[in-house]
Amino acid sequence: MYKKIDSKDIAYFKSFISEDRLFIGPAIVEEYAKDELGTVKNYPETVIKVLTAYEISKIMKYCNQQVIPVTLRGSGTGLVGGCVPVKGGIVLDMTMMNKILELDEENLTLVVEAGVLLMDIYSHIEPLGYFYAPDPGEKSATIGGNIATNAGGMRAVKYGVTRDWILALEVVLPNGEVTQFGRKVVKDTTGYSLKNLIIGSEGTLAIVTKAYLKLIPLPAKTISLLVPFKTLEQGIDKVPVILQSNTDPTAIEFFGRETIAFAETFLGKKFPDTDNQAYILLTFDGFDEEDVNRKYQQAARLCLNQLGAEDVLIVDTDERKDDVWSARGAFLEAIKASTTQMDECDVVVPRAKVSEFIRFTYGLSEKYNIRIPSFGHAGDGNLHIYICKDNLSDNEFNQKLAAVFSEMYKKAKECGGLVSGEHGIGYAKKIYMKEVLGDTQINLMKGIKKAFDPNYILNPGKLF
Amino acid sequence: MYKKIDSKDIAYFKSFISEDRLFIGPAIVEEYAKDELGTVKNYPETVIKVLTAYEISKIMKYCNQQVIPVTLRGSGTGLVGGCVPVKGGIVLDMTMMNKILELDEENLTLVVEAGVLLMDIYSHIEPLGYFYAPDPGEKSATIGGNIATNAGGMRAVKYGVTRDWILALEVVLPNGEVTQFGRKVVKDTTGYSLKNLIIGSEGTLAIVTKAYLKLIPLPAKTISLLVPFKTLEQGIDKVPVILQSNTDPTAIEFFGRETIAFAETFLGKKFPDTDNQAYILLTFDGFDEEDVNRKYQQAARLCLNQLGAEDVLIVDTDERKDDVWSARGAFLEAIKASTTQMDECDVVVPRAKVSEFIRFTYGLSEKYNIRIPSFGHAGDGNLHIYICKDNLSDNEFNQKLAAVFSEMYKKAKECGGLVSGEHGIGYAKKIYMKEVLGDTQINLMKGIKKAFDPNYILNPGKLF
Repeated sequence: MYKKIDSKDIAYFKSFISEDRLFIGPAIVEEYAKDELGTVKNYPETVIKVLTAYEISKIMKYCNQQVIPVTLRGSGTGLVGGCVPVKGGIVLDMTMMNKILELDEENLTLVVEAGVLLMDIYSHIEPLGYFYAPDPGEKSATIGGNIATNAGGMRAVKYGVTRDWILALEVVLPNGEVTQFGRKVVKDTTGYSLKNLIIGSEGTLAIVTKAYLKLIPLPAKTISLLVPFKTLEQGIDKVPVILQSNTDPTAIEFFGRETIAFAETFLGKKFPDTDNQAYILLTFDGFDEEDVNRKYQQAARLCLNQLGAEDVLIVDTDERKDDVWSARGAFLEAIKASTTQMDECDVVVPRAKVSEFIRFTYGLSEKYNIRIPSFGHAGDGNLHIYICKDNLSDNEFNQKLAAVFSEMYKKAKECGGLVSGEHGIGYAKKIYMKEVLGDTQINLMKGIKKAFDPNYILNPGKLF
Repeated sequence: MYKKIDSKDIAYFKSFISEDRLFIGPAIVEEYAKDELGTVKNYPETVIKVLTAYEISKIMKYCNQQVIPVTLRGSGTGLVGGCVPVKGGIVLDMTMMNKILELDEENLTLVVEAGVLLMDIYSHIEPLGYFYAPDPGEKSATIGGNIATNAGGMRAVKYGVTRDWILALEVVLPNGEVTQFGRKVVKDTTGYSLKNLIIGSEGTLAIVTKAYLKLIPLPAKTISLLVPFKTLEQGIDKVPVILQSNTDPTAIEFFGRETIAFAETFLGKKFPDTDNQAYILLTFDGFDEEDVNRKYQQAARLCLNQLGAEDVLIVDTDERKDDVWSARGAFLEAIKASTTQMDECDVVVPRAKVSEFIRFTYGLSEKYNIRIPSFGHAGDGNLHIYICKDNLSDNEFNQKLAAVFSEMYKKAKECGGLVSGEHGIGYAKKIYMKEVLGDTQINLMKGIKKAFDPNYILNPGKLF
C-alpha cells in the first residue's frame, strides 16, 4: 500500500524545507492527530508547515512517486475528521500561507492564500467598504477549509454559500502540477467546472493554494430581530411564510431555550429573553438604511400578526447585538462544554421539513434516553444536532450513537435531504453518504478521484 | 469505432417508441443536422423524440452496449455546434419532455422536465408571484439547453447564472441508470458536487431529464436606464464605478450605434436615441418600489455627474420598454440578418478589461478588413462578438476568421479571461479551449468523461 516515511524521505524534504517547519516523531503535537471534535485520531509520520505552492508542488511530486499519503490541515476546526491523517504519511499545515495578496477594487476581487483566516478576511476588507458574504460560525477557520467543505453559515439564506463567492482557485494537483481553475471572471462555460468540483471535495482532489474571492460593496446597515415562540415547531413551521414574503432576510436561525441555557452557562452572561421555549433570529441587511428599516419592520409585523410570535425584540444596540450574537456564536462550544463527549449531525432537509425533522430528534432522544440538543439554519434547512455522551459508558454511548445516527440519516433521506449541509463527510460520515446517495454516485465520485489522484495519495480514507 | 445503426437496432427502438416519434433517413429534417449558427453540419442516423426518462434509460442502455453515439437536442438555439451529431448515431429530441411538474411554494422550488422552454417557465410562475432570475437572451431555449451551457444572460450581474438557480437534477447516465444529483435543499456538502459538474458539461456526461429550480418572490418593480456616451470606451470604462456603488444593478449591458442600426433595420422601428456612439443599459429591480426608485435615481446622478454620460433616459413606459428591450433582444438576429454568414466569439474577461478587449476587436477589424460588430454584458465581462462574412469568398472568410479567432482568444488569455462566458465550447471552440486551459486541465476533463461515459457515446466529438 502506502510507503512509510523513512530517513531518506526526510532528508529530501529537508533539502528545501527549513528545520523549524518540519516535524517528525515525538515533535508532532497531538493537534495534528485530530480535529476539533476528535472522533477519529491518528498521528501523521511527518508534519510540514508549507509556505508556497512551489514547496507543495515539490512535496507532491515526490509523494506521488513514492506513494506517500498527504493530508491537508488548516485551523483544524472541522467536525468530521477531514484533516485527520487516517493513513499516516504527511500532514501539510497550511496556516503559514496566510497572506492577503491583492484587493482588486475594479474587479471586486480579493486574492488570498489558502491559510488566511475567515476573520482576517472580514477585518481586511470591511473597513474599506467591501463585503465577503459567507458567514460560517467558526471565524478562525481558514478560507482553504471553508472551500474544502463549501462552508455555508448564517447569511446563506440571502447570499448563498462559499461556492457562490469563489471566482477562481490556484491548486496543486496530486502529481505536483500547479494550475488555476477559473479566472477573475463572473461567468464561465469553458469546459467542465473543475473549480466547482474542487469546492466541497474536502482536500481529496487537489490542494488549494490561492483563492480569488468575489466581493460586493458592504451593506450600509444590518439589523436582527429576536422572535420568541411558544414552541420550536410554531416558529420553524412559519419560516416558509417569511421566505415567501418580500422582506429578503439575510439569515433565519432557530434555537431552543435549552441551547440558550448552555450558552448562558458557558459565557457567564444572560440572554436578552429566556421566557419562551423557542426563538427565531432574523437578520436583514442592505445598501440603503431606509430599505433595511422597511424590511425588518415588515417582518416584525408579519411575525406578530400572522405567525403567532410571542414578541419581537429588535437587536439594534451594540449591547444587545453582542448579547445575542455572542450566544449564537457560542452554541457549539457551549453544548460541547455541557457534556463529556459528543458527536454531531449536520443534515440538510427541504426547508418545509425542518420542524418535522427536529420533532423526530426529540422522539429519538426519548426512545434512546440520550440528550440531543440542536440549533441551526431554519432558513436553509441545515440543522446542527448534537448527541451527548453525558454519563454514559463508552460502550453505551457508541451503541446509542450508532442507532441514533442510523435512524437520523434514514429520516433525512425520507425527507428528501442529504447527509451534510456544510460540515462535510470526512471520515465520520462515509457510511451515511453511501446509504443516502447509493453506489452509482459513489462510483462516479471514485472515478473522478482516480482522474485527479490515480495513486490515491491525497487525503486517503475520506468520503468513500 | 462506433456502430452504425441498422434495421435490427431500429426494430428494437420501435418496440417501445411509437413510429411518429422515430425518424430515419430522408424523414430526418435538416434542423437535426445543425444548430442556430450552422457552422458545423452532420446528419444523425436516427432521431427519437423522447417522452420519459424511462425511454431514455432504455435507449442509453442499448446504445452503451452497442456503442452507438447519442447527442441531445433541445430547441437547437446553440451557437457552437453542441447539439450537432458530428459522429452520427442518434439525436434525442428533448422538446416533447415539456411538462412543468410541480410548483412547491413552501420550498420555493419549481420542478420541470428538461424540454420546457425558458419563456414557459416565466409565464407559469410570474403571474403567481415567483421569479426565476436567469435571463438568457434566447427565451425559446429549453431549460435543459440552459443547464448544458450554464446560460447566463442579462440579470447575471445581480442574480448569477443558471448554475446558481439549480437545486437538483434528475439525469440518465450513459449506461442507462437514472439518478438524482442534489435535492430540494439550498446547502449541500455531501461528496463531490456532481450536480455542478453536469451544469455546463454540454450534454457530454449525462442526460438531464428533470430540473429542480430555485425560485424567489417576484420583484415588485423593474426599471431601466438607457445611458448614452460619446464613445463606447467612455461608457464601459466606468462600469466598475457603478458596480462599486450601492445601486445594486441587476443588469449592465453595452452596445454601439452600429448594432442599434442593425436592430432598427431588422425590426423596422426606431430606437429611442441614436444621437450617440455608445450606450449602457442599466436595470434595477427589487422587492420594494421606493427602494428601486432610490437605486435608479442614484445611478442616474452617478452617470450624469461622475461618469460623463451625455444623457440618461428612463425606460419606464411600456412603449419605451418595448422599444429598448425588443432592440436588445434582436441584436443577434439583426447582426445575422446584416450579413451573408457569421461566426461568434463569447469570451469572458475581467470586468475592468472589457473596454480594452472591445478596442482590440476594432483593431482586428481594421487589420483584417472584416466587419466585427459586438455587444454584450459589460457588468459581467461577457462579450458577444460577431465576425461577418459579408461579400467575402468562402475561402477568404475562413482564412480571416481563423486568424481573427486566433488573435482574439490569445488576447482573452492575456487579459485573464476564458473562451466562453455562456455559449459553451461545443464543437466550434475546442481548439481555443485547449489553448487557453492547457493539456493538464483537458486531461482532467477527459478523466472525468471516462468516469461517466467509458464508451464515449454521449455527444462525442465535443469539448475536447
